[in-house]
Amino acid sequence: MTVVAGVAYWLAGMNPFDAIVHALTSIATGGYSTSDQSFGRWEDNGIQWLATLFMLSGTLPFVLYVRFLAGDRRAFFDRQVKSLLGLLAVSVGGIGTWLAASGQYGFEQAYRYAAFSVVSVVTTTGYAVTDYGQWGAAIVGVFFLLTFVGGCTGSTSGGIKIFRFEVMAVMLRVHFLRLLYPNGVFPRSYDGKPLSDEVIGSVVAFLTVFLVCYAVITVVLLGLGLDFLTSASGAATALSNVGPGLGETIGPAGTFASLPSAAKWVLSFAMLLGRLELFTVLIIFLPRFWRG
Amino acid sequence: MTVVAGVAYWLAGMNPFDAIVHALTSIATGGYSTSDQSFGRWEDNGIQWLATLFMLSGTLPFVLYVRFLAGDRRAFFDRQVKSLLGLLAVSVGGIGTWLAASGQYGFEQAYRYAAFSVVSVVTTTGYAVTDYGQWGAAIVGVFFLLTFVGGCTGSTSGGIKIFRFEVMAVMLRVHFLRLLYPNGVFPRSYDGKPLSDEVIGSVVAFLTVFLVCYAVITVVLLGLGLDFLTSASGAATALSNVGPGLGETIGPAGTFASLPSAAKWVLSFAMLLGRLELFTVLIIFLPRFWRG
Repeated sequence: MTVVAGVAYWLAGMNPFDAIVHALTSIATGGYSTSDQSFGRWEDNGIQWLATLFMLSGTLPFVLYVRFLAGDRRAFFDRQVKSLLGLLAVSVGGIGTWLAASGQYGFEQAYRYAAFSVVSVVTTTGYAVTDYGQWGAAIVGVFFLLTFVGGCTGSTSGGIKIFRFEVMAVMLRVHFLRLLYPNGVFPRSYDGKPLSDEVIGSVVAFLTVFLVCYAVITVVLLGLGLDFLTSASGAATALSNVGPGLGETIGPAGTFASLPSAAKWVLSFAMLLGRLELFTVLIIFLPRFWRG
Repeated sequence: MTVVAGVAYWLAGMNPFDAIVHALTSIATGGYSTSDQSFGRWEDNGIQWLATLFMLSGTLPFVLYVRFLAGDRRAFFDRQVKSLLGLLAVSVGGIGTWLAASGQYGFEQAYRYAAFSVVSVVTTTGYAVTDYGQWGAAIVGVFFLLTFVGGCTGSTSGGIKIFRFEVMAVMLRVHFLRLLYPNGVFPRSYDGKPLSDEVIGSVVAFLTVFLVCYAVITVVLLGLGLDFLTSASGAATALSNVGPGLGETIGPAGTFASLPSAAKWVLSFAMLLGRLELFTVLIIFLPRFWRG
């Protein structure tokens, strides 16, 4: 997939070096760029659409590709993929329409920028085409929320991940049904299979730990002198391994360079925590772990 | 209890009308005051300590008073009460010590202001003695988090409530134990009794819906032109029924008066949602509810 991406970028007009670098960081949803403007440097030849496509292909569960190649034509009609695409369609549609209607960009450019930016944040890649911090407060709020989402389980993306949101949605649905029909029996099932108590327990535990870590990191960053938006979005973008935060300093048009060193240590630890899915790191700090 | 509070306020120097009003809004953790400065007007005679005590007594589960009066001397050694007092002790101790050490206030005043403000926010009363928005960014962050906590289940307080956090803590504990000892059997129990699947399900559903409502309301407020801190803390303080938010406008020294009408409608709906514990309101919007 990385080779395909590299060749595509090259054919679309990047020089070979840029094509290789961006191929490596698109599929891996890593997000490094050779340009300070990130993908803002490549406005033409559909390169941004290509990048959107490649980020998206990096965020799908890799096991589905294997299944597809093994002959399962319906492999990508997976529930997680459907939810992800649904969420992206709604976000891109909403933001793109708003951008086009407000006259900030032309029609194609509005949807291209919206699609690129939303996919970049949700897949935790972190490329930028332009400073979406300038698109209006409500859209900044939406990007803030999208920072937490993450891609599919079993892909290169970080973040909370779609599957966990789906488990919560199943729990919610069952709870509402129980409220409506107190004598009904409603099994918790996902894609036709029952959700085990352990899966539910680990999803709930993950989300709890995620929120606690998020809150602690935000307060620590506030204490280090960062403003509210920088702290809140910095903690989110680090834990989710996205890349850019929000606000003047660390927004998609800024960098983390000017932050105090202590804040960089905290954010580095947060990135590690998020990348290793919390428990792997936190369990080291439990005395019981070392007792064997 | 309201009568006791009224008499105590009166004896401590309030006029009869002020004493009655503040008695009614202390035990009920309502938080209205006859003065624009709220309790900042009554610096002397330990009135602020009294108010702290009364807010606290309004946030304990009322059933414990009944049990205590029925002769159970250990009624208040309840797990929920212990957790609440522990949380308050840590917050008040930390903030008070910091305020005293930084020289902003004298020793007694630092702990008095810290205790009053923390108890006012956690019990969702919403009185103010002074503008804790000026105490430094990290403390503002802590107050932001405390806004969500709420008092005990079965009291007059709003918010997420201590019991729900304890259920989450039990789930976390069990999850970590399972990670450490994959073959162990760890029942989920609370105060010696097993937590039923339904209790866990409803706590998880509540927290999920709470966070979703919180996120939606914050984004809507951002869209109505409020700044990030006002939107984020306004949504929190409305959903938790606390009262003051954070920031220049709606902080403990400000009012909601200058917000646009649409924001007031949104916040009113949020207060209603929070006060009725979400499901009671949201279920009305399910078509199935009306189908009988």
